[in-house]
Amino acid sequence: MNALGRHLLLELKNCNKEVLNDLEFLRVVLLKAAQECGATALGESFHQFSPQGVSGVVMIAESHLMIHTWPEYGYAAVDIFTCGNSVKPEKAAELLIKKLGTNNHSIIEIRRGILDT
Amino acid sequence: MNALGRHLLLELKNCNKEVLNDLEFLRVVLLKAAQECGATALGESFHQFSPQGVSGVVMIAESHLMIHTWPEYGYAAVDIFTCGNSVKPEKAAELLIKKLGTNNHSIIEIRRGILDT
Repeated sequence: MNALGRHLLLELKNCNKEVLNDLEFLRVVLLKAAQECGATALGESFHQFSPQGVSGVVMIAESHLMIHTWPEYGYAAVDIFTCGNSVKPEKAAELLIKKLGTNNHSIIEIRRGILDT
Repeated sequence: MNALGRHLLLELKNCNKEVLNDLEFLRVVLLKAAQECGATALGESFHQFSPQGVSGVVMIAESHLMIHTWPEYGYAAVDIFTCGNSVKPEKAAELLIKKLGTNNHSIIEIRRGILDT
């Protein structure tokens, strides 16, 4: 079953609440995650919410990495969408799981672009 | 079952191939989709690929709208992730389905951030 892309949806619970509200930390981690999985970063957009929470995206040549955080719940939603065989999204997932300090995570993988052959 | 966010994953096949390669068209449609569903746009990042294809994101106060296109296959992957009860992601989905001219689409909804109460 060939697909154009792999989309990992990470549910990260019981994270370190401080890092979930630290835009610069999350920005560096997302860029590092893009690098770790072999992707090429093209652009980014990050936003700090008041009183808390961060949203951020790193656009990559192979699709994107995205994070939304709710520090008040210790929760982050992360998406890692990659296309092509040279990129390893699991590597990005591993780094994010480690850096956000979650002790309760799950990953759903959705294959995107399953076309008729 | 309460969740922090609703994440719609749209698989849009047999789209109008010309619009899938038109960055400015897609940018306007994504911004309009954000508006239609009641969201507040915060930022955007769009990229034109060579020889074809567009990736783009509109960050909203309520999460994000994202598109990746493969004009050569007439295919687009769209994500509409919203949090809060005031935003209606279905409205954004309806607009994108209409504007991209797909005659073969599917929508998966994933609830994000289902926390222990």
